[in-house]
Amino acid sequence: MSEISGDAGFPKLRKFFDRAEYLVRLEKVRAEMVARGMDLLIVSDPANIGWMSGYDGYSFYNHQCVVVSMDNEPVWFGRGIDLNGAKATTYMTDSALFAYPEEYVQRDLHPMEYLAREVIAGRHWEGLAVGVEMDSFYFSAASLTTLQKHLPKNSWVDATGLVNRQRAVKSETELRYMRIGGRILEKMYARILDLIEPGMRKNDLVAEIFATAIRGVDDFGGDYPSIVPLVPTGIEAATPHLTWDDSKFQRGAGTFFEIAGVYRRYHCPLSRTVYIGQPPQKFLNAEKAVIEGIEAGLEAAKPGNTCEDIATAFFSVMNRHGIQKGGRVGYPIGMSYPPDWGERTTSLRVGDKTVLEPGMTFHFMPGLWFEDWGLEITESIVITTTGSSCLCDVPRKLFVKN
Amino acid sequence: MSEISGDAGFPKLRKFFDRAEYLVRLEKVRAEMVARGMDLLIVSDPANIGWMSGYDGYSFYNHQCVVVSMDNEPVWFGRGIDLNGAKATTYMTDSALFAYPEEYVQRDLHPMEYLAREVIAGRHWEGLAVGVEMDSFYFSAASLTTLQKHLPKNSWVDATGLVNRQRAVKSETELRYMRIGGRILEKMYARILDLIEPGMRKNDLVAEIFATAIRGVDDFGGDYPSIVPLVPTGIEAATPHLTWDDSKFQRGAGTFFEIAGVYRRYHCPLSRTVYIGQPPQKFLNAEKAVIEGIEAGLEAAKPGNTCEDIATAFFSVMNRHGIQKGGRVGYPIGMSYPPDWGERTTSLRVGDKTVLEPGMTFHFMPGLWFEDWGLEITESIVITTTGSSCLCDVPRKLFVKN
Repeated sequence: MSEISGDAGFPKLRKFFDRAEYLVRLEKVRAEMVARGMDLLIVSDPANIGWMSGYDGYSFYNHQCVVVSMDNEPVWFGRGIDLNGAKATTYMTDSALFAYPEEYVQRDLHPMEYLAREVIAGRHWEGLAVGVEMDSFYFSAASLTTLQKHLPKNSWVDATGLVNRQRAVKSETELRYMRIGGRILEKMYARILDLIEPGMRKNDLVAEIFATAIRGVDDFGGDYPSIVPLVPTGIEAATPHLTWDDSKFQRGAGTFFEIAGVYRRYHCPLSRTVYIGQPPQKFLNAEKAVIEGIEAGLEAAKPGNTCEDIATAFFSVMNRHGIQKGGRVGYPIGMSYPPDWGERTTSLRVGDKTVLEPGMTFHFMPGLWFEDWGLEITESIVITTTGSSCLCDVPRKLFVKN
Repeated sequence: MSEISGDAGFPKLRKFFDRAEYLVRLEKVRAEMVARGMDLLIVSDPANIGWMSGYDGYSFYNHQCVVVSMDNEPVWFGRGIDLNGAKATTYMTDSALFAYPEEYVQRDLHPMEYLAREVIAGRHWEGLAVGVEMDSFYFSAASLTTLQKHLPKNSWVDATGLVNRQRAVKSETELRYMRIGGRILEKMYARILDLIEPGMRKNDLVAEIFATAIRGVDDFGGDYPSIVPLVPTGIEAATPHLTWDDSKFQRGAGTFFEIAGVYRRYHCPLSRTVYIGQPPQKFLNAEKAVIEGIEAGLEAAKPGNTCEDIATAFFSVMNRHGIQKGGRVGYPIGMSYPPDWGERTTSLRVGDKTVLEPGMTFHFMPGLWFEDWGLEITESIVITTTGSSCLCDVPRKLFVKN
């Protein structure tokens, strides 16, 4: 009985997209590599890895990547014990899967040394210009310095966002997955509105949110979100990223829910705010302003317009209502892994001149965080040929529970 | 009505440890900085940030850090909208909290440029030797190159694992949190064994696992795990990191559960395997070997022995049973954030001479992943003054459900 991690013939267990779709993606990435003068690309962002190769596993706490060259199949590179996972989920042939041994895991030996020697030098790719995702979570400072040390003849080019930007326009299959996420999210909000009441512990509601998300809808089981449910109440809602505790909901406070329905790693996020009791006038004023602002933003969300146009339309309504709101009001969405469900490329903000195209998807997310309270009413949208449509149908309003 | 993110007087909403405990931690870290010749330390790992400052929020998808100098309070540095979150959760005074503006979020401007100029140069820390966590997830290659570019007079020292290693020996409060995690985990396993049956969809069971984890135990609400439940069945169990899908459990296959109970970010992980139907002899043989191996490992888990001793004791039993098992059989645990619940310092493996001390906590995790099946039976343990004890009480066996 011998523990192994490399036998041939392990079956493909999961297939989220046809091989043809992966090949289209590969060609898009290669065209951009050529445009930016790269011969080779090391893809470290787990969502980029998944989008390029199909690889799906909770293994990104170890160094892993996909290496894209101009002629061969992309190479999946990861930890030995994950090799069967790569065989099960990627579209590539087994010969394109390359595992590093266990002595490179969390020791002085860095996996990028193994990549340098066994893959890049091993395939005679020394001297090439290599794109690396300089500001990806999972491409650490040591990843860069290790590669540079062991590959002195290669040159290094910043490829942050290169693959992410190719993901912007979604295919029909991707949109289908996101709409399933949207339907899951509708069930999550129905459950929240059913259950929330004074005296309920916050963690007990989050338990129901998670359970509903993962049960999914119809035959479609839900997947895990890249960001856990954010449910700040009262003064906690003056800042967006506090997680829940085991305190009880009380009358006379607002709670916003920043949550997503997820199917096969595709996210449909959406926020709503629930006030228990009679909302103060400031909540009602903010609700009115935000809803008008979203309507104005959605009017501006159409092909040919820019990301900035959505933000400007929203801000002009806010200004009319006397609410100072800066920063960005949204970001592109799609496939993702923790810790972020945004695509980390464009933003819906003043100055972002990215032209909107049919198939682009955004979380239009104008969160309002004031001195001691907050309100979030948001929409996930897809740009259509003539305008935009929402990916999820939850009434656009401040919910009031008495 | 003006959106803000910086008013004075925001209340401390959460306090997981006394200020005195944070000061002890700070002195331990400073002593290690001196020993390694660092004047300043930039802490990027969210668990290290939390352990040093108390900061707790799902905001680590943005650049953030804690800067430790030799005399002042540690500086929390993060995104503007998270400043109130820092006020709510850190033990420091508001003057130690420093936020970067929204134009540094996911644009060409890098937050580390702001840190360099406003914090490090602003406090006249140019010329100092700065420790950086070179191989932390959240200290990207661009974080390093940006700091180096804007602070040409500073020198840079690798501080990977420096803070992590100070976290190894747990305080009484930390152990209490981990034991609460263990009690939550006991409920999670009871729920799994209650529910699992042929025909149940895997995602529906994961929904119950999540819900039970977050409901918690008694008055203690559960927190989110840094790794989602891993529940591979049959051939999927030949690799450890595939996540669930919506297929149904069937008779005649084993499923291992790699899950954790979590309280206030402190994790108690533990794996068990459930076989539906009559287990083949190979499962029963592996069960027997692993249980004997764990017993041998636990015998070796005592102060004065080393991490290696636990691994060697385990492997010698495996060899006797004719099972080849390499790599590591465990890692230290405690506070963590996605994507990993290990402390990423020592390992239970041959060659690791770290001496065991009372209060150290490990996930003793000898996973077996074979050609087309796998088995995980593990324990989370704390080293005591005389030996070790388990943090969670789940029968140590292969569970069989007929």
